Amino acid sequence: MVIADTALETMPIEIFQHPSLKKIRDSGKKPTEILLDRTFHHFAIVSSALKENYKRGRPDILHIILLNVLATPLFKKNLVKVFVHTINNQVIKIGDYLRIPKSYSRFEGLVLDLIENKKIVAKDGTLLLELSDNLSFSHMIEKKIKPDVVIGFSTTGMFKNFGGVCKELFQFKNPCVIIGGFPRGHFSKDIESCIDNMYSVSDLSLEAHVVVSRLLYEWEKINDF
Amino acid sequence: MVIADTALETMPIEIFQHPSLKKIRDSGKKPTEILLDRTFHHFAIVSSALKENYKRGRPDILHIILLNVLATPLFKKNLVKVFVHTINNQVIKIGDYLRIPKSYSRFEGLVLDLIENKKIVAKDGTLLLELSDNLSFSHMIEKKIKPDVVIGFSTTGMFKNFGGVCKELFQFKNPCVIIGGFPRGHFSKDIESCIDNMYSVSDLSLEAHVVVSRLLYEWEKINDF
Repeated sequence: MVIADTALETMPIEIFQHPSLKKIRDSGKKPTEILLDRTFHHFAIVSSALKENYKRGRPDILHIILLNVLATPLFKKNLVKVFVHTINNQVIKIGDYLRIPKSYSRFEGLVLDLIENKKIVAKDGTLLLELSDNLSFSHMIEKKIKPDVVIGFSTTGMFKNFGGVCKELFQFKNPCVIIGGFPRGHFSKDIESCIDNMYSVSDLSLEAHVVVSRLLYEWEKINDF
Repeated sequence: MVIADTALETMPIEIFQHPSLKKIRDSGKKPTEILLDRTFHHFAIVSSALKENYKRGRPDILHIILLNVLATPLFKKNLVKVFVHTINNQVIKIGDYLRIPKSYSRFEGLVLDLIENKKIVAKDGTLLLELSDNLSFSHMIEKKIKPDVVIGFSTTGMFKNFGGVCKELFQFKNPCVIIGGFPRGHFSKDIESCIDNMYSVSDLSLEAHVVVSRLLYEWEKINDF
Protein backbone atom coordinates (compact mmCIF):
# COMPACT_ATOMS: atom_id res chain seq x y z
CA MET A 1 0.00 0.00 0.00
CA VAL A 2 1.26 3.42 -0.93
CA ILE A 3 -0.21 6.66 0.39
CA ALA A 4 0.67 9.00 -2.45
CA ASP A 5 1.11 12.76 -2.96
CA THR A 6 0.76 13.00 0.81
CA ALA A 7 0.27 16.55 2.09
CA LEU A 8 3.26 16.27 4.44
CA GLU A 9 6.22 18.65 4.31
CA THR A 10 8.11 21.09 6.45
CA MET A 11 7.39 24.75 5.96
CA PRO A 12 8.61 26.14 2.62
CA ILE A 13 10.68 29.28 3.05
CA GLU A 14 8.20 31.45 1.12
CA ILE A 15 5.47 30.51 3.59
CA PHE A 16 7.75 31.09 6.56
CA GLN A 17 8.37 34.64 5.43
CA HIS A 18 4.68 35.49 5.12
CA PRO A 19 3.67 38.50 7.27
CA SER A 20 0.94 36.49 9.05
CA LEU A 21 3.53 34.14 10.56
CA LYS A 22 5.60 36.68 12.51
CA LYS A 23 4.82 34.93 15.81
CA ILE A 24 6.25 31.67 14.48
CA ARG A 25 9.42 33.39 13.21
CA ASP A 26 9.81 35.12 16.56
CA SER A 27 9.52 31.76 18.36
CA GLY A 28 13.02 30.90 17.17
CA LYS A 29 11.93 27.74 15.34
CA LYS A 30 13.44 27.08 11.93
CA PRO A 31 11.04 26.37 9.03
CA THR A 32 12.51 22.85 8.83
CA GLU A 33 11.31 22.27 12.38
CA ILE A 34 7.66 23.02 11.57
CA LEU A 35 5.19 20.88 9.63
CA LEU A 36 3.21 22.90 7.12
CA ASP A 37 -0.32 22.80 8.52
CA ARG A 38 -3.39 24.49 7.17
CA THR A 39 -4.86 24.65 10.69
CA PHE A 40 -2.21 27.20 11.66
CA HIS A 41 -0.84 28.52 8.37
CA HIS A 42 -3.97 28.71 6.26
CA PHE A 43 -3.73 32.36 5.28
CA ALA A 44 -0.04 32.13 4.41
CA ILE A 45 -0.69 29.01 2.30
CA VAL A 46 -3.63 30.33 0.30
CA SER A 47 -2.00 33.67 -0.37
CA SER A 48 1.26 32.05 -1.51
CA ALA A 49 2.27 31.06 -5.00
CA LEU A 50 2.94 27.53 -3.74
CA LYS A 51 2.22 25.04 -6.52
CA GLU A 52 -1.07 23.14 -5.99
CA ASN A 53 -1.48 24.74 -2.59
CA TYR A 54 -4.98 23.21 -2.19
CA LYS A 55 -3.30 19.78 -1.93
CA ARG A 56 -0.80 20.79 0.77
CA GLY A 57 -0.37 21.30 4.49
CA ARG A 58 -2.58 18.49 5.82
CA PRO A 59 -0.35 16.18 7.93
CA ASP A 60 -3.46 15.28 9.95
CA ILE A 61 -4.75 13.31 6.94
CA LEU A 62 -1.69 11.05 6.97
CA HIS A 63 -2.01 10.62 10.73
CA ILE A 64 -5.59 9.37 10.45
CA ILE A 65 -4.85 7.06 7.51
CA LEU A 66 -1.92 5.50 9.37
CA LEU A 67 -3.95 5.08 12.57
CA ASN A 68 -6.47 3.11 10.54
CA VAL A 69 -3.98 1.02 8.60
CA LEU A 70 -1.64 0.20 11.48
CA ALA A 71 -4.51 -0.90 13.74
CA THR A 72 -5.74 -3.61 11.34
CA PRO A 73 -5.08 -7.30 12.05
CA LEU A 74 -3.55 -7.40 8.54
CA PHE A 75 -0.80 -4.95 9.48
CA LYS A 76 -0.38 -6.39 12.97
CA LYS A 77 0.27 -9.80 11.39
CA ASN A 78 2.81 -8.23 9.00
CA LEU A 79 0.76 -9.08 5.91
CA VAL A 80 0.87 -5.64 4.32
CA LYS A 81 3.80 -3.29 3.63
CA VAL A 82 3.12 0.42 3.82
CA PHE A 83 4.90 3.32 2.12
CA VAL A 84 4.19 7.03 2.30
CA HIS A 85 5.10 9.11 -0.73
CA THR A 86 4.89 12.88 -0.21
CA ILE A 87 4.08 15.78 -2.48
CA ASN A 88 7.79 16.64 -2.45
CA ASN A 89 8.94 13.15 -3.46
CA GLN A 90 10.08 12.01 -0.09
CA VAL A 91 9.30 8.36 0.67
CA ILE A 92 8.76 6.99 4.15
CA LYS A 93 8.99 3.25 4.72
CA ILE A 94 6.74 2.17 7.59
CA GLY A 95 8.45 -0.48 9.71
CA ASP A 96 6.83 -3.86 10.35
CA TYR A 97 4.53 -3.94 13.37
CA LEU A 98 4.94 -0.18 13.86
CA ARG A 99 2.59 1.58 16.23
CA ILE A 100 2.19 5.33 16.05
CA PRO A 101 0.82 7.69 18.69
CA LYS A 102 -2.91 8.49 18.57
CA SER A 103 -2.08 11.91 19.95
CA TYR A 104 -1.45 14.25 17.02
CA SER A 105 1.15 16.30 18.84
CA ARG A 106 3.21 13.18 19.53
CA PHE A 107 2.84 12.08 15.92
CA GLU A 108 4.02 15.50 14.76
CA GLY A 109 7.09 15.25 16.99
CA LEU A 110 7.87 11.81 15.58
CA VAL A 111 7.59 12.99 11.98
CA LEU A 112 9.79 16.04 12.60
CA ASP A 113 12.38 13.77 14.21
CA LEU A 114 12.22 11.52 11.13
CA ILE A 115 12.60 14.42 8.72
CA GLU A 116 15.65 15.66 10.60
CA ASN A 117 17.36 12.30 11.18
CA LYS A 118 16.02 10.23 8.24
CA LYS A 119 15.56 7.22 10.51
CA ILE A 120 13.75 6.29 13.68
CA VAL A 121 15.21 3.20 15.31
CA ALA A 122 13.82 1.38 18.36
CA LYS A 123 15.99 0.69 21.41
CA ASP A 124 16.49 -2.91 20.25
CA GLY A 125 17.76 -1.72 16.86
CA THR A 126 14.56 -2.36 14.87
CA LEU A 127 14.00 0.15 12.09
CA LEU A 128 10.68 1.89 12.75
CA LEU A 129 10.62 4.58 10.08
CA GLU A 130 13.00 5.46 7.26
CA LEU A 131 12.84 8.48 4.99
CA SER A 132 14.38 8.73 1.51
CA ASP A 133 14.68 12.11 -0.18
CA ASN A 134 14.17 12.78 -3.87
CA LEU A 135 12.56 9.47 -4.73
CA SER A 136 9.93 9.96 -7.38
CA PHE A 137 6.77 7.91 -7.23
CA SER A 138 7.51 6.04 -10.45
CA HIS A 139 11.07 5.27 -9.35
CA MET A 140 9.81 3.93 -6.03
CA ILE A 141 7.31 1.68 -7.81
CA GLU A 142 9.73 0.39 -10.44
CA LYS A 143 12.89 -0.01 -8.39
CA LYS A 144 11.72 -0.59 -4.82
CA ILE A 145 8.24 -2.09 -4.68
CA LYS A 146 8.22 -3.89 -8.07
CA PRO A 147 4.53 -4.85 -8.01
CA ASP A 148 2.84 -7.00 -10.65
CA VAL A 149 -0.22 -4.75 -10.67
CA VAL A 150 -0.95 -1.21 -9.47
CA ILE A 151 -4.52 -0.24 -8.52
CA GLY A 152 -5.42 3.34 -7.66
CA PHE A 153 -8.49 4.81 -5.99
CA SER A 154 -10.09 7.97 -7.26
CA THR A 155 -13.55 9.38 -7.88
CA THR A 156 -12.47 9.56 -11.55
CA GLY A 157 -12.09 5.76 -11.73
CA MET A 158 -14.50 3.09 -12.92
CA PHE A 159 -16.96 1.88 -10.26
CA LYS A 160 -15.99 -1.35 -8.50
CA ASN A 161 -16.84 -2.23 -4.91
CA PHE A 162 -14.21 -3.22 -2.34
CA GLY A 163 -14.95 -6.92 -2.67
CA GLY A 164 -14.55 -6.70 -6.44
CA VAL A 165 -11.26 -4.85 -6.14
CA CYS A 166 -9.94 -7.45 -3.72
CA LYS A 167 -10.95 -10.30 -6.04
CA GLU A 168 -8.90 -8.63 -8.77
CA LEU A 169 -5.90 -8.05 -6.47
CA PHE A 170 -6.12 -11.67 -5.37
CA GLN A 171 -5.03 -12.84 -8.82
CA PHE A 172 -1.59 -11.28 -8.36
CA LYS A 173 1.45 -12.17 -6.29
CA ASN A 174 2.57 -8.68 -5.30
CA PRO A 175 -0.28 -6.27 -5.86
CA CYS A 176 0.09 -2.61 -4.95
CA VAL A 177 -2.72 -0.22 -4.02
CA ILE A 178 -2.40 3.56 -4.18
CA ILE A 179 -4.42 5.96 -2.02
CA GLY A 180 -4.16 9.73 -2.11
CA GLY A 181 -2.93 11.38 1.08
CA PHE A 182 -4.18 14.86 0.18
CA PRO A 183 -7.42 16.77 0.86
CA ARG A 184 -8.68 17.48 -2.66
CA GLY A 185 -7.68 17.32 -6.30
CA HIS A 186 -6.25 14.32 -8.10
CA PHE A 187 -3.07 12.29 -8.35
CA SER A 188 -0.14 13.98 -10.08
CA LYS A 189 0.77 12.86 -13.61
CA ASP A 190 3.78 10.79 -12.49
CA ILE A 191 1.51 8.74 -10.24
CA GLU A 192 -1.29 8.34 -12.77
CA SER A 193 1.21 6.99 -15.31
CA CYS A 194 2.05 4.10 -12.95
CA ILE A 195 -1.52 3.02 -12.28
CA ASP A 196 -2.88 0.07 -14.25
CA ASN A 197 -6.49 0.37 -13.12
CA MET A 198 -8.22 3.23 -11.33
CA TYR A 199 -11.38 2.50 -9.35
CA SER A 200 -14.06 4.50 -7.64
CA VAL A 201 -15.45 2.50 -4.72
CA SER A 202 -18.51 4.51 -3.74
CA ASP A 203 -21.15 6.82 -5.13
CA LEU A 204 -20.07 9.24 -2.40
CA SER A 205 -16.59 10.72 -2.33
CA LEU A 206 -15.00 8.68 0.47
CA GLU A 207 -12.15 10.00 2.55
CA ALA A 208 -8.88 8.10 2.26
CA HIS A 209 -9.00 6.65 5.78
CA VAL A 210 -12.38 5.08 5.01
CA VAL A 211 -11.10 3.61 1.76
CA VAL A 212 -8.04 2.00 3.37
CA SER A 213 -10.07 0.63 6.30
CA ARG A 214 -12.61 -1.07 4.07
CA LEU A 215 -10.07 -2.29 1.56
CA LEU A 216 -7.82 -3.93 4.15
CA TYR A 217 -10.84 -5.49 5.86
CA GLU A 218 -12.07 -7.06 2.60
CA TRP A 219 -8.51 -8.19 1.87
CA GLU A 220 -8.39 -9.96 5.25
CA LYS A 221 -11.71 -11.64 4.50
CA ILE A 222 -10.84 -12.84 0.99
CA ASN A 223 -7.53 -14.24 2.23
CA ASP A 224 -9.06 -15.63 5.41
CA PHE A 225 -6.27 -13.97 7.41
CA MET B 1 -24.41 3.73 18.28
CA VAL B 2 -23.12 4.76 21.67
CA ILE B 3 -19.50 5.40 22.47
CA ALA B 4 -19.47 4.61 26.17
CA ASP B 5 -17.32 5.45 29.21
CA THR B 6 -15.48 7.82 26.88
CA ALA B 7 -12.22 9.19 28.29
CA LEU B 8 -13.33 12.79 27.81
CA GLU B 9 -13.52 15.32 30.63
CA THR B 10 -12.13 18.66 31.67
CA MET B 11 -9.33 18.66 34.17
CA PRO B 12 -10.38 17.55 37.68
CA ILE B 13 -9.28 20.02 40.34
CA GLU B 14 -7.01 17.48 42.08
CA ILE B 15 -5.06 17.04 38.83
CA PHE B 16 -4.89 20.78 38.23
CA GLN B 17 -3.21 21.27 41.59
CA HIS B 18 -0.53 18.69 40.95
CA PRO B 19 3.02 20.14 41.26
CA SER B 20 3.95 18.98 37.73
CA LEU B 21 1.33 21.28 36.18
CA LYS B 22 2.60 24.63 37.51
CA LYS B 23 3.10 25.93 33.94
CA ILE B 24 -0.55 25.27 33.11
CA ARG B 25 -1.76 27.01 36.28
CA ASP B 26 0.50 29.95 35.50
CA SER B 27 -0.98 30.22 31.98
CA GLY B 28 -4.17 31.65 33.51
CA LYS B 29 -6.41 28.89 32.09
CA LYS B 30 -9.08 27.47 34.36
CA PRO B 31 -9.23 23.67 34.76
CA THR B 32 -12.65 23.75 33.08
CA GLU B 33 -10.98 25.18 29.98
CA ILE B 34 -8.55 22.27 29.60
CA LEU B 35 -9.30 18.72 28.42
CA LEU B 36 -7.65 16.12 30.58
CA ASP B 37 -5.04 14.59 28.29
CA ARG B 38 -2.53 11.91 29.10
CA THR B 39 -0.17 13.32 26.46
CA PHE B 40 0.39 16.40 28.58
CA HIS B 41 -0.79 15.43 32.06
CA HIS B 42 0.42 11.85 32.33
CA PHE B 43 2.46 12.21 35.49
CA ALA B 44 -0.27 14.15 37.29
CA ILE B 45 -2.87 11.54 36.25
CA VAL B 46 -0.94 8.44 37.26
CA SER B 47 0.15 9.89 40.59
CA SER B 48 -3.38 11.01 41.45
CA ALA B 49 -6.03 9.12 43.37
CA LEU B 50 -8.43 9.61 40.43
CA LYS B 51 -10.79 6.63 40.20
CA GLU B 52 -9.92 4.26 37.32
CA ASN B 53 -7.26 6.67 36.12
CA TYR B 54 -6.05 4.15 33.48
CA LYS B 55 -9.34 4.72 31.63
CA ARG B 56 -9.14 8.52 31.59
CA GLY B 57 -7.62 11.48 29.79
CA ARG B 58 -7.74 10.20 26.19
CA PRO B 59 -9.88 12.64 24.15
CA ASP B 60 -7.84 11.63 21.07
CA ILE B 61 -9.58 8.22 21.14
CA LEU B 62 -13.00 9.84 20.76
CA HIS B 63 -11.67 12.07 18.00
CA ILE B 64 -10.48 9.11 15.94
CA ILE B 65 -13.65 7.09 16.51
CA LEU B 66 -15.82 10.02 15.40
CA LEU B 67 -13.66 10.69 12.34
CA ASN B 68 -14.28 7.10 11.31
CA VAL B 69 -17.99 7.02 12.05
CA LEU B 70 -18.87 10.43 10.60
CA ALA B 71 -17.02 9.70 7.33
CA THR B 72 -19.08 6.59 6.52
CA PRO B 73 -21.79 6.66 3.83
CA LEU B 74 -24.13 5.33 6.54
CA PHE B 75 -23.73 8.45 8.66
CA LYS B 76 -23.65 10.78 5.68
CA LYS B 77 -27.03 9.39 4.60
CA ASN B 78 -28.38 9.89 8.14
CA LEU B 79 -28.91 6.16 8.70
CA VAL B 80 -27.20 5.95 12.08
CA LYS B 81 -27.61 8.06 15.23
CA VAL B 82 -24.54 8.58 17.38
CA PHE B 83 -24.24 9.36 21.09
CA VAL B 84 -21.15 9.83 23.22
CA HIS B 85 -21.42 8.90 26.88
CA THR B 86 -18.47 9.97 29.04
CA ILE B 87 -16.82 8.53 32.10
CA ASN B 88 -18.46 11.34 34.11
CA ASN B 89 -21.98 10.65 32.81
CA GLN B 90 -22.18 13.47 30.36
CA VAL B 91 -23.96 12.60 27.12
CA ILE B 92 -23.24 14.25 23.78
CA LYS B 93 -25.78 13.93 20.98
CA ILE B 94 -24.07 14.08 17.59
CA GLY B 95 -26.14 16.10 15.13
CA ASP B 96 -27.27 14.62 11.81
CA TYR B 97 -24.78 15.05 8.95
CA LEU B 98 -22.20 16.54 11.37
CA ARG B 99 -18.65 16.93 10.17
CA ILE B 100 -15.86 17.38 12.69
CA PRO B 101 -12.38 18.77 12.09
CA LYS B 102 -9.60 16.29 11.29
CA SER B 103 -7.20 18.60 13.06
CA TYR B 104 -7.05 17.59 16.72
CA SER B 105 -6.51 21.12 17.97
CA ARG B 106 -9.67 22.30 16.22
CA PHE B 107 -11.60 19.33 17.59
CA GLU B 108 -10.37 20.16 21.10
CA GLY B 109 -11.57 23.75 20.70
CA LEU B 110 -14.97 22.54 19.56
CA VAL B 111 -15.36 20.18 22.52
CA LEU B 112 -14.32 22.83 25.03
CA ASP B 113 -16.86 25.20 23.49
CA LEU B 114 -19.52 22.47 23.81
CA ILE B 115 -18.65 21.77 27.45
CA GLU B 116 -18.90 25.47 28.29
CA ASN B 117 -22.07 26.26 26.30
CA LYS B 118 -23.82 22.85 26.22
CA LYS B 119 -24.78 23.36 22.57
CA ILE B 120 -23.11 24.04 19.26
CA VAL B 121 -25.53 25.46 16.72
CA ALA B 122 -24.81 26.16 13.03
CA LYS B 123 -25.43 29.57 11.48
CA ASP B 124 -28.68 28.29 9.97
CA GLY B 125 -29.91 27.15 13.39
CA THR B 126 -29.20 23.42 12.96
CA LEU B 127 -28.16 21.72 16.19
CA LEU B 128 -24.68 20.26 15.68
CA LEU B 129 -23.78 19.02 19.15
CA GLU B 130 -25.67 18.97 22.43
CA LEU B 131 -24.36 18.02 25.84
CA SER B 132 -26.43 16.79 28.78
CA ASP B 133 -24.92 16.63 32.25
CA ASN B 134 -25.56 13.92 34.82
CA LEU B 135 -27.23 11.47 32.51
CA SER B 136 -26.31 7.93 33.50
CA PHE B 137 -25.78 5.36 30.78
CA SER B 138 -28.76 3.24 31.82
CA HIS B 139 -31.02 6.29 31.97
CA MET B 140 -29.92 7.38 28.50
CA ILE B 141 -30.66 3.90 27.12
CA GLU B 142 -34.04 3.49 28.83
CA LYS B 143 -35.45 7.01 28.49
CA LYS B 144 -33.77 8.46 25.40
CA ILE B 145 -32.65 5.78 22.96
CA LYS B 146 -35.18 3.05 23.85
CA PRO B 147 -33.60 0.32 21.73
CA ASP B 148 -35.07 -3.14 21.29
CA VAL B 149 -31.66 -4.78 21.65
CA VAL B 150 -28.29 -3.64 23.03
CA ILE B 151 -25.11 -5.26 21.71
CA GLY B 152 -21.73 -4.48 23.26
CA PHE B 153 -18.19 -5.13 22.03
CA SER B 154 -15.51 -6.38 24.36
CA THR B 155 -12.68 -8.90 24.38
CA THR B 156 -14.61 -10.59 27.21
CA GLY B 157 -17.56 -11.32 24.88
CA MET B 158 -18.41 -14.43 22.89
CA PHE B 159 -16.76 -14.62 19.46
CA LYS B 160 -18.91 -13.50 16.55
CA ASN B 161 -17.65 -11.86 13.38
CA PHE B 162 -18.92 -8.51 12.10
CA GLY B 163 -21.17 -10.11 9.51
CA GLY B 164 -22.72 -12.34 12.18
CA VAL B 165 -23.30 -9.42 14.52
CA CYS B 166 -25.00 -7.45 11.73
CA LYS B 167 -27.26 -10.38 10.87
CA GLU B 168 -28.38 -10.44 14.50
CA LEU B 169 -28.92 -6.65 14.59
CA PHE B 170 -30.88 -6.90 11.37
CA GLN B 171 -33.68 -8.75 13.16
CA PHE B 172 -34.50 -5.68 15.25
CA LYS B 173 -36.18 -2.37 14.51
CA ASN B 174 -34.06 -0.11 16.69
CA PRO B 175 -30.85 -1.93 17.59
CA CYS B 176 -28.17 -0.19 19.64
CA VAL B 177 -24.44 -0.96 19.62
CA ILE B 178 -22.07 0.04 22.41
CA ILE B 179 -18.35 0.66 21.90
CA GLY B 180 -15.91 1.64 24.62
CA GLY B 181 -14.27 5.06 24.19
CA PHE B 182 -11.44 4.38 26.64
CA PRO B 183 -7.88 3.04 26.26
CA ARG B 184 -7.99 -0.06 28.49
CA GLY B 185 -10.09 -1.88 31.03
CA HIS B 186 -13.74 -2.81 30.67
CA PHE B 187 -17.19 -1.22 30.67
CA SER B 188 -18.44 0.02 34.03
CA LYS B 189 -21.13 -2.00 35.84
CA ASP B 190 -23.97 0.37 34.89
CA ILE B 191 -23.16 -0.16 31.21
CA GLU B 192 -22.73 -3.92 31.46
CA SER B 193 -26.14 -4.23 33.08
CA CYS B 194 -27.76 -2.69 29.96
CA ILE B 195 -26.07 -4.98 27.44
CA ASP B 196 -28.06 -7.95 26.15
CA ASN B 197 -25.24 -9.64 24.26
CA MET B 198 -21.53 -8.94 24.41
CA TYR B 199 -19.35 -9.98 21.46
CA SER B 200 -15.66 -10.22 20.72
CA VAL B 201 -15.11 -9.66 16.99
CA SER B 202 -11.47 -10.65 16.57
CA ASP B 203 -8.80 -12.91 17.99
CA LEU B 204 -6.71 -9.74 18.35
CA SER B 205 -7.77 -6.93 20.65
CA LEU B 206 -9.07 -4.39 18.12
CA GLU B 207 -9.09 -0.69 18.80
CA ALA B 208 -12.51 0.95 18.96
CA HIS B 209 -12.10 2.91 15.74
CA VAL B 210 -11.42 -0.32 13.83
CA VAL B 211 -14.48 -1.98 15.37
CA VAL B 212 -16.83 0.87 14.44
CA SER B 213 -15.44 1.12 10.90
CA ARG B 214 -15.93 -2.55 10.16
CA LEU B 215 -19.28 -2.77 11.89
CA LEU B 216 -20.81 0.17 10.01
CA TYR B 217 -19.41 -1.13 6.72
CA GLU B 218 -21.01 -4.55 7.23
CA TRP B 219 -24.24 -2.84 8.28
CA GLU B 220 -24.24 -0.88 5.01
CA LYS B 221 -23.69 -4.09 3.07
CA ILE B 222 -26.40 -6.14 4.77
CA ASN B 223 -28.92 -3.31 4.33
CA ASP B 224 -27.73 -2.53 0.81
CA PHE B 225 -27.48 1.16 1.76
